[in-house]
Amino acid sequence: MKELTLVVASKNYSSWSLRPYLALAHTGQPFREVVVQLGQPDTAAHIAKYSPSGRVPALLHGELVIWDSLAICEYLAELFPQARLWPQDTAARALARSVTAEMHSGFTNLRNHMSMNLRARKPGEGRAPGVAEDIERITSLWKECRARHGQGGPFLFGAFSIADAFYAPVVTRFVTYDVELEPVCAAYRDAVLALPALKAWTEAGRNEPPVARYEK
Amino acid sequence: MKELTLVVASKNYSSWSLRPYLALAHTGQPFREVVVQLGQPDTAAHIAKYSPSGRVPALLHGELVIWDSLAICEYLAELFPQARLWPQDTAARALARSVTAEMHSGFTNLRNHMSMNLRARKPGEGRAPGVAEDIERITSLWKECRARHGQGGPFLFGAFSIADAFYAPVVTRFVTYDVELEPVCAAYRDAVLALPALKAWTEAGRNEPPVARYEK
Repeated sequence: MKELTLVVASKNYSSWSLRPYLALAHTGQPFREVVVQLGQPDTAAHIAKYSPSGRVPALLHGELVIWDSLAICEYLAELFPQARLWPQDTAARALARSVTAEMHSGFTNLRNHMSMNLRARKPGEGRAPGVAEDIERITSLWKECRARHGQGGPFLFGAFSIADAFYAPVVTRFVTYDVELEPVCAAYRDAVLALPALKAWTEAGRNEPPVARYEK
Repeated sequence: MKELTLVVASKNYSSWSLRPYLALAHTGQPFREVVVQLGQPDTAAHIAKYSPSGRVPALLHGELVIWDSLAICEYLAELFPQARLWPQDTAARALARSVTAEMHSGFTNLRNHMSMNLRARKPGEGRAPGVAEDIERITSLWKECRARHGQGGPFLFGAFSIADAFYAPVVTRFVTYDVELEPVCAAYRDAVLALPALKAWTEAGRNEPPVARYEK
């Protein structure tokens, strides 16, 4: 088996990097990790060393460089079918891909005004126009997934899937910005927060140097 | 086989709708089509009739509603493996998913300033800050795909794939806004423009009523 290397950006700030990390950690496969600190003089050079297109996160596998969080997750789902990164049931998988893709291209208000910052606590901040609508949509998706396919476990589709990896940064934002949730959504949030891989990631991010432009 | 229904928005303006339409047309399977005109008083009600979450494009298959252009394409790729909507080769497929996902979540400058309008011709317009960088990145991706995996045909990965469906709206923007391309990219553009499904879609869009906010 060729070595797998995941190139990620800041663990404290990079929501895009957290997603494939959680998926890869879930496979249980060994992998090497390269963390590129954002906002440093050599950031671009550091990234280019691993990812010629300048994109992170990137997964290196032999000669292959796969970038984009979702493309990496699909690649891992194919490479490690036994990890069941997507739900096995066709209907559940179709819904999982729908909510994952919606996260991948959407929720810009939430992204812009409640940026990920794992170690920060900013209760009451981030309530800009459109953010409440994004939160309403996200929680309604969570409830739909849990109600339809959540019987076998605490995650959106019971067992952990790529959909959870995609919503994990949202879960952390709800903690950072102290977003109140109804019980079913709070229980889901707590299940994600209890993931050992998320705890390890968060702990590692705690000691990173602060980057001014992400602390605004 | 349960009936397939694709719910799309305007053919003249909706780049998101064009993508799964091209993928579905490529499968050769019969499907029903519902076109929802944008910007009408009953648009939201019309969409909700088919897609409870209010999202278009949406694919209806029996009881299932799959929304988001990329989730629909992945669903079709699984449902019709003989259509080979993704390249068969692992390395080619990984690259195809990377460039597709980058289109799915990115290129916001191009999207905002060169919005899709199939029947319009606006040479010289849309050159806002950041647009040239998006065009440069897109054409460099096209060249990379064609050089690495384009031997077997005129598309990004030789035969038509979901990656082409995702970049087809960009191809039409390059025509509408008269973006000059070097020969290898111009040849690719012309191969996409020659797709019978794109021609039929464009022709149907020609007779739609203009919507003021998309004509700005």
